[in-house]
Amino acid sequence: MVETTKTQVEIVEGGTVLSPIGFQAAGIHGRLRKTRKDFGLLVSDKPASVAAVYTQSHFQAPPLKVTQASIAKQQKLQAIVVNSAVANACTGEQGLSNAYKMREMISSRFGFPEEYVAVASTGVIGVQLPMDKISYGCKTIEPTSFGASDFQQAILTTDTCEKATCYRLTVDGKVVTIGGTAKGSGMIHPNMATMLSFITTDATIESEYLQAALSVCVDKSFNQITVDGETSTNDMVLTMANGSVDHNPLSPEHPDWNVFTEALQLVCEDLSKKIAKDGEGATKLIEVNVRGANSVSDAQIIAKKVVGSSLVKTAVYGKDANWGRIVGAIGHADATVHPDDCDIYIEGQLVFSKGTPCSFSEEQAIKDLSKEEVTIDIHLHEGDGIGTAWGCDLTYDYVKINASYRT
Amino acid sequence: MVETTKTQVEIVEGGTVLSPIGFQAAGIHGRLRKTRKDFGLLVSDKPASVAAVYTQSHFQAPPLKVTQASIAKQQKLQAIVVNSAVANACTGEQGLSNAYKMREMISSRFGFPEEYVAVASTGVIGVQLPMDKISYGCKTIEPTSFGASDFQQAILTTDTCEKATCYRLTVDGKVVTIGGTAKGSGMIHPNMATMLSFITTDATIESEYLQAALSVCVDKSFNQITVDGETSTNDMVLTMANGSVDHNPLSPEHPDWNVFTEALQLVCEDLSKKIAKDGEGATKLIEVNVRGANSVSDAQIIAKKVVGSSLVKTAVYGKDANWGRIVGAIGHADATVHPDDCDIYIEGQLVFSKGTPCSFSEEQAIKDLSKEEVTIDIHLHEGDGIGTAWGCDLTYDYVKINASYRT
Repeated sequence: MVETTKTQVEIVEGGTVLSPIGFQAAGIHGRLRKTRKDFGLLVSDKPASVAAVYTQSHFQAPPLKVTQASIAKQQKLQAIVVNSAVANACTGEQGLSNAYKMREMISSRFGFPEEYVAVASTGVIGVQLPMDKISYGCKTIEPTSFGASDFQQAILTTDTCEKATCYRLTVDGKVVTIGGTAKGSGMIHPNMATMLSFITTDATIESEYLQAALSVCVDKSFNQITVDGETSTNDMVLTMANGSVDHNPLSPEHPDWNVFTEALQLVCEDLSKKIAKDGEGATKLIEVNVRGANSVSDAQIIAKKVVGSSLVKTAVYGKDANWGRIVGAIGHADATVHPDDCDIYIEGQLVFSKGTPCSFSEEQAIKDLSKEEVTIDIHLHEGDGIGTAWGCDLTYDYVKINASYRT
Repeated sequence: MVETTKTQVEIVEGGTVLSPIGFQAAGIHGRLRKTRKDFGLLVSDKPASVAAVYTQSHFQAPPLKVTQASIAKQQKLQAIVVNSAVANACTGEQGLSNAYKMREMISSRFGFPEEYVAVASTGVIGVQLPMDKISYGCKTIEPTSFGASDFQQAILTTDTCEKATCYRLTVDGKVVTIGGTAKGSGMIHPNMATMLSFITTDATIESEYLQAALSVCVDKSFNQITVDGETSTNDMVLTMANGSVDHNPLSPEHPDWNVFTEALQLVCEDLSKKIAKDGEGATKLIEVNVRGANSVSDAQIIAKKVVGSSLVKTAVYGKDANWGRIVGAIGHADATVHPDDCDIYIEGQLVFSKGTPCSFSEEQAIKDLSKEEVTIDIHLHEGDGIGTAWGCDLTYDYVKINASYRT
């Protein structure tokens, strides 16, 4: 059996989607917005294996349909073209036709087969893409090896900062890199679409196995964050593995499989936390760890219920060590819970034990809850299941941002 | 087959839990709080059939356990004793023992069998009942035929108003009355328990059938309101039917069964809407009607998802006719939805039709959204399922109330 430890995976400070070998990117002002960058392109030097996870919304936007059609053909991608400002969602037949045109323009300009091109859009929904501007973008954008930051900026909507991460590992003794970027769930403008993430790696791996790894990682990261419980029409995570590092192809049988999935998990987790922390109006990242649950699924359900509770979020904003809010949220989670066995810690301080509150230092709690990152630990004493979820506090600014846009 | 119409059921203006024959009540200042009434008693002249619905929270409070134990014995009740200020939740063995003592004190003072007494508490959780004050209340409270308003006041916590409703119908040609009161889901104080409702009727009906009727009604009323998606440790709906009106016992075979269930449904619905409208910091009642769903269950799920969406709630607060928020909420409801068939109306104005937005009058929408009650209609064109849910807007005051209590 293979032993893997955290020490085999290391973070690459300042790393991006262009840290892995064989990728280029660009981000430009495509004139969809007044001044900010709004049009991006990420390309691989050669056709890459691909894995994707899409929104579960019934209202899936045209760009997602086009991307799914591309990937379905050969399970390969060489380019991802993205625009912000307009999400091309709830746009009917014309929206779908526009998304296909956007794909075609990149395909013909760079000579990639159409099915090697993915399309992503984010921004206002219910509005058609301005195709003259999209066409301008497709004609003028020039990917380079130093375009990562421009690309990261071009995909943002109401995010307050670029989001990037990168990890390095060794496969068959060779250095493999995984980089990622994301745009968050800020939804300041009305009808704004939500979460996009693009991950690159120079690892050699078939799409089938990349997909298996990504699905597991997304379940424990992007699917465990919540800003306000909403799912957008355009959410998508796309991963390209271009095989620029020549090692034995990764699969669950490969001795370094666990190291690879661990690194991919860290990339997904980092990006998820950055998104949660940059939630609308948020001042804090909240992490909820559940252990001792009957199953991993139970632990994840409870963690997400607690971090998603408006009352928990508001209490954390108010620096209130309000175990009652946490009990309330655990109480109606669809999972096995025996109240008399349940312990709750806020920033390491036990506040609730075996079904009743403990005496604890309010002074310390206020100090702890003033931090930018607040951790809540819950021990259920039911079994071995563990799970984590991330979110943010609920503030006056969340209401302001979302109430006052159009009136 | 029996034909029933709305005209057979009529509202009793100013009616209360004491409008049905054979009930008495009182509400006093039992010294749990500084000045407000905090201790109530509702009694029936004779043992009444009973139906109950309890919180689904894993953390079920001691008073609920005692009430369940009472009802389990003979399915009869003659008294409901309630205190506010302290919920007696998360209080362990001592809390359970105190709830039993509270039952015993009422039982011995009024000469009811212990199993004819139900106990309810609402208020701060994690704190033991002050038994000296509970004892004082049990010894001094005197139910009368004019104590309805006092009782209604005594059960309130952070509600801004008393809640009462009453309907009248005829069974076998005789007038039957159903009255109800409730306390709402205001949760200003930390760890405050939530929703209580008490319903009385002079109808003659076995507990078994009363329970069947109540369960159906609660599913379409109390279970379809949401202020912030939270379930409390103490939620309970209790119904007593004392048979003071002598008619053939009601059952699904009785020709007036449908009229009775309709009246009970109206009582539950009225109280539910009053609770939703009095949500913390709320300025508006939001009603979401879904029709054309694949099933009643699908319609109810979607209605509740929309009315519970923080983004929909905030948009309504901001008078923003933001169909995108509604699409977002419908999009991730666990129900059958075909976006291309979906229509959305805000206060009767079509804003989204067959998967794409419509042009509509923004001016009219702002006027409509300035009302105290806002209705959103959704037509899915899938089947015959209909469902309704109620909630309130999300305001600065919600954040203020819930963030600033203890710091």
